[in-house]
Amino acid sequence: MAVLRSYVSGAWHTPDDGAPLLDAVTGEEVARISSAGIDMAAALDYGRRTGGPALRELTFHQRAALLKVLASHLREHRDELYALSARTGATLGDSKFDVDGGIGVLFAYSSKGRRELPNAKILVDGDVEPLSREGTFLGQHIATPLRGVAVQINAFNFPVWGPLEKFAPAFVAGVPSLVKPASQTAYLTARLVELIVESGILPEGSIQLVAGSAGDLLDHVTPQDLVSFTGSASTAQHLRAHPVVVRNSVRFNAEADSLNCSILGPDAVPGTTEFDLFVKQLVTEMTVKAGQKCTAIRRAFVPAERMDDVAEAVGARLAKTTVGNPTSEGVRMGALASLEQREEVRRSLKSLTAAGTIVFGDPEHVDVVDADAERGAFISPVLVRADDPDRAEPHEVEAFGPVSTLMPYTSTEQVIDLAARGSGSLAGSVVSADTEFVREVVLGAAPWHGRLLVLDADDAKESTGHGSPMPALVHGGPGRAGGGEEMGGIRGVLHHMQRTAVQGSPKTLTAVTGRWVSGAPRTEGEHPFRKSLAELRIGDSVVAGPRTVTQEDVDHFAEFTGDTFYAHTDPEAAAANQFFGGIVAHGYLVVSFAAGLFVSPEPGPVLANYGLENLRFLTPVKPGDSLTVSLTAKQITPRENADYGEVRWDADVTNGDGESVAKYDVLTLVAKEKS
Amino acid sequence: MAVLRSYVSGAWHTPDDGAPLLDAVTGEEVARISSAGIDMAAALDYGRRTGGPALRELTFHQRAALLKVLASHLREHRDELYALSARTGATLGDSKFDVDGGIGVLFAYSSKGRRELPNAKILVDGDVEPLSREGTFLGQHIATPLRGVAVQINAFNFPVWGPLEKFAPAFVAGVPSLVKPASQTAYLTARLVELIVESGILPEGSIQLVAGSAGDLLDHVTPQDLVSFTGSASTAQHLRAHPVVVRNSVRFNAEADSLNCSILGPDAVPGTTEFDLFVKQLVTEMTVKAGQKCTAIRRAFVPAERMDDVAEAVGARLAKTTVGNPTSEGVRMGALASLEQREEVRRSLKSLTAAGTIVFGDPEHVDVVDADAERGAFISPVLVRADDPDRAEPHEVEAFGPVSTLMPYTSTEQVIDLAARGSGSLAGSVVSADTEFVREVVLGAAPWHGRLLVLDADDAKESTGHGSPMPALVHGGPGRAGGGEEMGGIRGVLHHMQRTAVQGSPKTLTAVTGRWVSGAPRTEGEHPFRKSLAELRIGDSVVAGPRTVTQEDVDHFAEFTGDTFYAHTDPEAAAANQFFGGIVAHGYLVVSFAAGLFVSPEPGPVLANYGLENLRFLTPVKPGDSLTVSLTAKQITPRENADYGEVRWDADVTNGDGESVAKYDVLTLVAKEKS
Repeated sequence: MAVLRSYVSGAWHTPDDGAPLLDAVTGEEVARISSAGIDMAAALDYGRRTGGPALRELTFHQRAALLKVLASHLREHRDELYALSARTGATLGDSKFDVDGGIGVLFAYSSKGRRELPNAKILVDGDVEPLSREGTFLGQHIATPLRGVAVQINAFNFPVWGPLEKFAPAFVAGVPSLVKPASQTAYLTARLVELIVESGILPEGSIQLVAGSAGDLLDHVTPQDLVSFTGSASTAQHLRAHPVVVRNSVRFNAEADSLNCSILGPDAVPGTTEFDLFVKQLVTEMTVKAGQKCTAIRRAFVPAERMDDVAEAVGARLAKTTVGNPTSEGVRMGALASLEQREEVRRSLKSLTAAGTIVFGDPEHVDVVDADAERGAFISPVLVRADDPDRAEPHEVEAFGPVSTLMPYTSTEQVIDLAARGSGSLAGSVVSADTEFVREVVLGAAPWHGRLLVLDADDAKESTGHGSPMPALVHGGPGRAGGGEEMGGIRGVLHHMQRTAVQGSPKTLTAVTGRWVSGAPRTEGEHPFRKSLAELRIGDSVVAGPRTVTQEDVDHFAEFTGDTFYAHTDPEAAAANQFFGGIVAHGYLVVSFAAGLFVSPEPGPVLANYGLENLRFLTPVKPGDSLTVSLTAKQITPRENADYGEVRWDADVTNGDGESVAKYDVLTLVAKEKS
Repeated sequence: MAVLRSYVSGAWHTPDDGAPLLDAVTGEEVARISSAGIDMAAALDYGRRTGGPALRELTFHQRAALLKVLASHLREHRDELYALSARTGATLGDSKFDVDGGIGVLFAYSSKGRRELPNAKILVDGDVEPLSREGTFLGQHIATPLRGVAVQINAFNFPVWGPLEKFAPAFVAGVPSLVKPASQTAYLTARLVELIVESGILPEGSIQLVAGSAGDLLDHVTPQDLVSFTGSASTAQHLRAHPVVVRNSVRFNAEADSLNCSILGPDAVPGTTEFDLFVKQLVTEMTVKAGQKCTAIRRAFVPAERMDDVAEAVGARLAKTTVGNPTSEGVRMGALASLEQREEVRRSLKSLTAAGTIVFGDPEHVDVVDADAERGAFISPVLVRADDPDRAEPHEVEAFGPVSTLMPYTSTEQVIDLAARGSGSLAGSVVSADTEFVREVVLGAAPWHGRLLVLDADDAKESTGHGSPMPALVHGGPGRAGGGEEMGGIRGVLHHMQRTAVQGSPKTLTAVTGRWVSGAPRTEGEHPFRKSLAELRIGDSVVAGPRTVTQEDVDHFAEFTGDTFYAHTDPEAAAANQFFGGIVAHGYLVVSFAAGLFVSPEPGPVLANYGLENLRFLTPVKPGDSLTVSLTAKQITPRENADYGEVRWDADVTNGDGESVAKYDVLTLVAKEKS
């Protein structure tokens, strides 16, 4: 039987033999696994010395573009991944959740990386912080890629999505990954990494794979490495307290399965859309991946008077869930990942049933289609009913399978407290059309949750559901859920970077960040609108004016635009305004005149003004004031796949006394080369 | 002798006796300390049940306003704090650094809290995330205050600034603090907390004090509590691995003293401003607080050929540093905090001198003014010269006193590597006027640093110096520095809050966040500009138009404003533009006409339009297009100390086909009541 290969230090490593990994459905051996002989210290060092520098040569946009190519490549090989996935016990639907979900994360990070990050190698984080009166001393936070390796220790339940959701933000950040999948389903992750490595799409060293035990891997992590773990709370604790992780203050992120809850609103009586949505969602969360999801609903809270209705409706729906060989037609729920997992679920159910009774399913028996119920890791969905929600077990014991406990509540306050009894969860949901109830529950439960879904008739059609982490949203939760945060769009990229406050003069900050800082030197010469991206430099500027704003200008602008606000038209009323004390020019007049001053009318590299940001009117402009505008190239963002890019200009409009009357950023599209 | 009081569970607790704390200068007993008899679990519970709810009743702005009152109150009592501070060995300058610095943090957080946070109880974090095609399902991150207590374990060297820099962001976040000062200088922190509690300014339970050992405090922390530690790296490791901290995924932030470096640029030869700045700063960092600063310069890197020059200049300056009783005139450097600290410094110096030679000072002898050099914890400043920068000791051994090691470098690459040898630092500095050198060093050293100061002739006058953390900037650093992050403006507030991704329909997100989300219901009726803050509600809106934009309008606007950009004036050239394909109206014309449509001209509650944000031109407007604008109240921020507040309006300008041509936020000031 084939032994899984690891990919470390730039080469494939195949051990002689290893522990058998069994098909979840048939019990047949799929592969063997061992990490014997892998030099973990060398693998980390290779990542730091090869992958890191190669990635840091690229900009955020270049890395993001590679992710898109990789995602498309993997999509071409989906069927192969689905087939292996079936051997983990997954139905085709489950496999899509895992495989397509993972590929979706790559696409999402590719898109966000290009839309929300600069086409640069470092990230400017937040605004310039003034630190002095005269403005010669300022602060600016920057984020730079950590110089280490992101060690990613994954769980068995999502062998594709799990590695990819950790890999994507690390890659965009410029940090190489070392993937360590859970053994049980490692054959699928191993194939995934083979596809990635063999494609040659990524720079060498961007990704490594250790199939098998982590061995002494964590003994070699340094302050610039990261460890990101998904799995059980107990393993998370063990790794978090690892002496080398602690000694080196290694960034450690844990995402542990938690006792997530779903709450039915008091308004959602039988017959309402929300009642049906609640029941349907609960059954889905119990049965997708045979309930082996960190985010699955373990605790279902319903108004006390709805206990019978919900138990009945959920039971009726579960009864229609065909269990069996996941590749067989009509099968809705496959097997657990292993026989050991089934034993674990049965053990947990013994604890749960001390606090309640089973109202659907039999942990010891299930009818299966096209499979052997004992050789395969099959188990029935099980709904437990616990009429005393104050019992400890349902809030503490997790059966990591198709198991949920139904509990009653009698007040909004109580259900918020019950939600918190999970001691920190990845995800929760509220199913209700009562906005006030929803608001109270969400704000009350939020400190205990990483994600909260509100489901109602309005969003049901498009909702992605309780159990689906989204690349744009944080995935993680406090306390029992591990206290971590993954994804969340660009937040996940920043987790892989060091934030540093840089202090210096405007000139220094401009040189360090590549972004012009107000107060830094400006270069006047040829009008900067005449320069293509190839010629334009940060700090290139034009100073234009003065132009005097007359009373006639203000009157005319009011009449022309229809903006006859009293401060522009009624001297007496304007005089009474606490900010103006007399007629003022329209803000829109000021910026329009400024554009008239700085524009260079003839066709040239500047293609369009596509927006404007952070406009503040700082000093009222009165008739008779003269305006001068300074426009300075602040940030240049060439696009990777277009013949133009974005240029952000700093605009500063001053009056005759040199006071700024308006400051803003002008956003333009500029050609890379002169046509 | 007085025994220090603790303030826990709403009452002052005075133990019968305790360990003596000695005056650093005279060796006399200042106070005794013990935490015997304090019920730590009860104190934490009291904070959670009393302080937390009281703080969460207030908005960010209300908390920020209280901080300002508190800061002013403490400023009135500065002299008393200075007097106690002198007993820690601090000169008046040192005391101001600690006391005024701490009060400054309160003022800074008061100001930032009001300027950068909403006047609300939760924080909307980041933008709305689209999660669906039709827009019925969206995501929005919110941040809510953790429901626990911020346990703040402070170091002995900053008994006022240390507690206040941790307290301020926690307070603004709405999280109560429990302050545990280091024993040696706890008498000063105890007086500080007495002043705070006795002032009655803060809600009861906002702050507690444990003077003495932490006892079993950490055994009682829960997933909603936080632990923030400043002190030695070894204690940080011990606390980080505390089983309860680990089990509950308690947020743990460490700030440990580190082997910070300062780098002299190759351009800064003797005679340059930068050479003098480097020497002066190094001496300052060695002698302020007798070098007992986590951020002090421990490693000074200079071009190899400058070693003699720098050693000589630093020695000459150190020779002028009068050591002695900090209250005596002319004394520039006081005592270490205790005789134990002096022994510790002498021990560390034995290791350092294995790698170098002392070129200034004698660890065993110092001449002191107006004090007994042996009874008081006095020590001479000591400059070590290590000509081999590859030796391990200078990069690993920290002498926490007036001690620095001078080392040579020969290339930019080498000095970046040497800086990293500190394994993670709080602060570093580069003294150079060579922008290219600065850029390379800053970007190369950034992953290893929390803060980097660039000092040159431009910013020297206003620079706050290498050793001064600033409230607006992050304080912390990777690896040896503890891997944490404190302050950093609002970032420090967010550290005390849980980020939660909320998913739902626009209506739901509007209800949860109190901020109107595009797609949520709008209320049309009385023009919203006629409503004061007392009457205005989120979602109130006006829809106005249509108005047709004519060719004459565009021609006229071009002529009137001077904005004769070809896309508005030259049909042929405009037709060739890849985005327009013909004449388009000016963006400024579109927003000006929109204002003319939505404005309500008569005097009323709307006082001024003070700005505009996030303007994007989405579809070109061609002559003949008709414009309609919807303006909707998006966010309402009443000011605490004014009769008006800010209203942010969502503006959406559409064309005859219903396409958005421009979207932006209009920022206005609106009166609280109708006049």
